[in-house]
Amino acid sequence: MVKTIEWKDNKVIMLDQSRLPIDVAYIECKDYLMVAEGIRKLWIRGAPAIGIATAMGIALAAQEISATDFEGFTKGLDPVFNTLIATRPTAVNIQWAVDRIRKFLDAGKDEPIAGLKALLIEEAERILAEDIEINMAIGRWGAQFIHDGDTVLTHCNAGSLATGGYGTATAPMLIAKEQGKKFQVIADETRPVLQGARLTSWELMQAGIPVTLITDNTAGALMQKGEINLAIVGTDRTVLNGDVANKIGTYTVAVLCKEHGIPFYVAAPMSSIDFSIPTGNLIPIEEREPREVTHIFGTCRIAPEGVKVRNLAFDVTPARYVTAIITENGAFKPENLKELSRPDPDLEKLRIRV
Amino acid sequence: MVKTIEWKDNKVIMLDQSRLPIDVAYIECKDYLMVAEGIRKLWIRGAPAIGIATAMGIALAAQEISATDFEGFTKGLDPVFNTLIATRPTAVNIQWAVDRIRKFLDAGKDEPIAGLKALLIEEAERILAEDIEINMAIGRWGAQFIHDGDTVLTHCNAGSLATGGYGTATAPMLIAKEQGKKFQVIADETRPVLQGARLTSWELMQAGIPVTLITDNTAGALMQKGEINLAIVGTDRTVLNGDVANKIGTYTVAVLCKEHGIPFYVAAPMSSIDFSIPTGNLIPIEEREPREVTHIFGTCRIAPEGVKVRNLAFDVTPARYVTAIITENGAFKPENLKELSRPDPDLEKLRIRV
Repeated sequence: MVKTIEWKDNKVIMLDQSRLPIDVAYIECKDYLMVAEGIRKLWIRGAPAIGIATAMGIALAAQEISATDFEGFTKGLDPVFNTLIATRPTAVNIQWAVDRIRKFLDAGKDEPIAGLKALLIEEAERILAEDIEINMAIGRWGAQFIHDGDTVLTHCNAGSLATGGYGTATAPMLIAKEQGKKFQVIADETRPVLQGARLTSWELMQAGIPVTLITDNTAGALMQKGEINLAIVGTDRTVLNGDVANKIGTYTVAVLCKEHGIPFYVAAPMSSIDFSIPTGNLIPIEEREPREVTHIFGTCRIAPEGVKVRNLAFDVTPARYVTAIITENGAFKPENLKELSRPDPDLEKLRIRV
Repeated sequence: MVKTIEWKDNKVIMLDQSRLPIDVAYIECKDYLMVAEGIRKLWIRGAPAIGIATAMGIALAAQEISATDFEGFTKGLDPVFNTLIATRPTAVNIQWAVDRIRKFLDAGKDEPIAGLKALLIEEAERILAEDIEINMAIGRWGAQFIHDGDTVLTHCNAGSLATGGYGTATAPMLIAKEQGKKFQVIADETRPVLQGARLTSWELMQAGIPVTLITDNTAGALMQKGEINLAIVGTDRTVLNGDVANKIGTYTVAVLCKEHGIPFYVAAPMSSIDFSIPTGNLIPIEEREPREVTHIFGTCRIAPEGVKVRNLAFDVTPARYVTAIITENGAFKPENLKELSRPDPDLEKLRIRV
């Protein structure tokens, strides 16, 4: 499996996904500002992967702090937290990683600073390992929805490249393949940044899963012809009532699925569920620069000079379009997410089983 | 207004739309094979424009035929008809132009061949002039649906560039502007060939109509926010029951419109209505080469080498999604199209008026 991100020799090595599939190039980040730049410029993308990058960026910054007392040390990390949080306002995993590291630091406040620095590296690597475990669990709960002969639609990239490994939306596909199921995948190319064309089709080809690339315009026609059996997508942030923020165009896929009676699944690690936000209309939606739309790869111009552009990076799919949210703890109806936010939910009772 | 196609000095001059908006280049077609190549390679595109190109291509071929009797002359045109019809199987206007020229020839079979050759040029130029008249009529019937403050969504290019002038889907916009209405347009970029980004946004900017370019993925999110009031699209072929074949993605726009209670209009010159086909599922749908999807402008690669691609060029929007079909004879409910196919329909009774 291609390594998305790793900690090596006191540097963070990340695959520059903005150049895939033309070039497979790794970038060595020697300081946290470069990690932040990588998150902002989409060298690394995908909710779980940027959570891992955040933790590794913090560990990197920590090594450079000269304070010898705990207060000075954590004070030195404050601008690091703020810089990382500001890179991608819609992604909950950056905040999640910052919160986890903050708690980790509080628990270790009696450690010597040199020890804390080493522990932060270990913690970042633990987040990576846990992510892979979580994705495999999502894969096991999600694979039940894929049957022999199915064609699965996916949008954007919630694949291995978006995570530490296995992916979220792709984990049910990889596990279904391990289970010997025969199925194929249709990948929406996912304009403007083309994660489906560049990343999803590439990594599914590498995994030996039959994949066909289409333009985002084509999914509706294939559904109309009865050629798609289910859709599985990822999420950047899912909220308490089951509304799902994900890559722009996901809502369109969900509407098309509803119109054709096709189940629409969202693979969501618990870390991407934001129980603090009651409904999807309260999720901040990032608008990105026009150039992503007017220039392919930043170079190939496709639109008139000076044209006005609206470039919403995400949309919100209301819970009523979602058949199930697949987490590492099981697959659930979106309206049951609020049960999961309570202490000791009866998971066995809430889980959807085919 | 930019000239899409014209007859000049015994040549057909066409704007190479495949290079817009980067280059504004005209191609001189000296023989009908080059006209056919232009239709096939999308130098010229849009149902009415390729009907005009077909008639001009035939006129061009006619000048080269050496037969001196009517039978030999028309026999010489048979391969021309066949070559032109084979260029784009979904487009009804090529067949329409061929049929018109065939009838025109039959009516002139007593003319000397030299006279017929000149008459074919006149007839091709008449088709161009009539097309502009037709589009202005579509514009007058369609402008009633555009109100002050509206935002109009359009997909692909059914603009001046797709016709002799004024366009079909854009004609209501141009006439509404002439009527002093204040409104704006959202143009779907329309992957894979990007007619919306390259052509529609360009020609609306030239016409002084405020236009915003979006990816095809964005229309759903804007509808959800209440930012789109109506959609107007063109058609490559509309059939007896009101089903509409148009650029891939049109069906998705129609489904989204239905989901949000937004009216969905189709601008269709009578020449694009094929009364011989009862329902949309019988319309042949062209599948085009993968390279349109994997390479932008044929050069900028965006997908892995060897990836499998499904590239449907058109989709079919069932009549139940269509609010009205706007023709040069008025706007009609799609279920009333069959009335128009009967002799002496009561147009006044059938027309929709706001």
